[in-house]
Amino acid sequence: MPYSRGSALENSVGIVGLGKVGKSLAYNFIKRGFRVYASTHKPLSVDSKNKLSGIEIVSTEEIPTHTKIVFLAVEDHKIEEAFYEMKDGLTGGHLVIVLSGAFDIKKLMVEGPCIVRAHPVRAFKEDEFSDIGNTIFVIEGTYGLDLLKEVIECLNCRYIEFKGDFRLYHASLVFVSNFIFSLYKEGEEMLTEAGFTDENTIKEILITLMKNAVENIEKADIFGLTGPVERNDTETVLSHLEAIKNEDTRLLYALLSLKLLDIAKKKYPCNNYREIEAILRGAMWKKE
Amino acid sequence: MPYSRGSALENSVGIVGLGKVGKSLAYNFIKRGFRVYASTHKPLSVDSKNKLSGIEIVSTEEIPTHTKIVFLAVEDHKIEEAFYEMKDGLTGGHLVIVLSGAFDIKKLMVEGPCIVRAHPVRAFKEDEFSDIGNTIFVIEGTYGLDLLKEVIECLNCRYIEFKGDFRLYHASLVFVSNFIFSLYKEGEEMLTEAGFTDENTIKEILITLMKNAVENIEKADIFGLTGPVERNDTETVLSHLEAIKNEDTRLLYALLSLKLLDIAKKKYPCNNYREIEAILRGAMWKKE
Repeated sequence: MPYSRGSALENSVGIVGLGKVGKSLAYNFIKRGFRVYASTHKPLSVDSKNKLSGIEIVSTEEIPTHTKIVFLAVEDHKIEEAFYEMKDGLTGGHLVIVLSGAFDIKKLMVEGPCIVRAHPVRAFKEDEFSDIGNTIFVIEGTYGLDLLKEVIECLNCRYIEFKGDFRLYHASLVFVSNFIFSLYKEGEEMLTEAGFTDENTIKEILITLMKNAVENIEKADIFGLTGPVERNDTETVLSHLEAIKNEDTRLLYALLSLKLLDIAKKKYPCNNYREIEAILRGAMWKKE
Repeated sequence: MPYSRGSALENSVGIVGLGKVGKSLAYNFIKRGFRVYASTHKPLSVDSKNKLSGIEIVSTEEIPTHTKIVFLAVEDHKIEEAFYEMKDGLTGGHLVIVLSGAFDIKKLMVEGPCIVRAHPVRAFKEDEFSDIGNTIFVIEGTYGLDLLKEVIECLNCRYIEFKGDFRLYHASLVFVSNFIFSLYKEGEEMLTEAGFTDENTIKEILITLMKNAVENIEKADIFGLTGPVERNDTETVLSHLEAIKNEDTRLLYALLSLKLLDIAKKKYPCNNYREIEAILRGAMWKKE
């Protein structure tokens, strides 16, 4: 059922780029009765066309003539180009929404119309035509935030207004998403070096434990931590440091363990962690 | 239905320690028709007693008089003590199974009877009375391995015989389980520093992305990697390094990113990563 919340939000949106995010947004807006005008360089697959029935494919330049709300759903390095393609058509009444979490929107804000950021906190899979309701959008902007909030509410999603350091925000997301891959890669290499040969076994071991760990944090917060650092087990930590031959990996082990020590200290404030801390700090120096 | 596979496996097992792992094993053996003799320092809760109906609580010393198969399900630093408590009752026909992944079983192997390791690759939750079928046990030992395999098969579980470096094996598990907590803690601190104030929001953002990341690895292997390093985006990497003020965190960011670079190089072997690599290596030196 179409929404009717005022003049700017005329039940239509524009989307520049129909990649994973663009397609998902298009699907969700169409489902909610919006007209969707989108530009894309790649032709849509038959399946996508069926799922996005009613979508109007236009040029990027044309989008502002059809709708006041425009999402920029292209890769970071293509955002400026996309913006300048439609710039001549933009008026003070338009709202341009950057979906990137890293792109510095101030670069565009100097151009006049309302430029805002709405960074969805979730990964989008290829051809994921499903409801994105309840997704959190971290939003930033000077003008046009009220309209942006309305748009997000139309998707039954939530928003968090954020005025802080977006670089730090984005770096933190790298820690809990990309760097999971770093740990996996380290684990994979160490199991191989330790003597495991079957790829499927290695993957099963690693994935099982990663899932367990995330579930534990979800359930018990950081206090769900177990393992040698948590139980102040210097002997095991020493044996690990001895077994790890690669300098970078040992440094990584020490740094990540020192972080666990922060958790252990909170969990058991009366324990004495001086020895384990000295061992870990010592391991940060290269071996002779 | 009781198993009957020969003389040693007389459909009974002993378990020293009824913590998370001990209780889960007891439950699974009872369910499969075994008599279970267990020793514990803590009295069982009413619920545990109901779930472990039929279990016989005896002293550690007594266990070898009742059964030939004994699991040591106590904490690492209590394994030797538990072993020596029952040592006088052990014969060449007994099999003592250490469940720890880190404890050096050679310490006990000098004592004569069959000492083996069976390290379950999974986290056990408190009072998790459920089937552990299909769990992988990483096993190690000189004598008694055939009997151990029989015992594991009785639980409908699998085993991987491993003769390699157990310290490295265990260290690799620390990377994919404990260190997930390190990343979470870093993420939490950075979001707080960036300006986020609501604890529940922070947790939701971090957990959502962690789950996404593990799912991506499960589905697409390490090639599911996204983010600035994967797309050779030096500008974003530089902005992150600039935003991170803590020395240890910046060093961590650099090391974990270098690991991602290994993945990126495999994914796109023709790309030139010299600039991003120089930036990351440079970030490993302290700021003036």
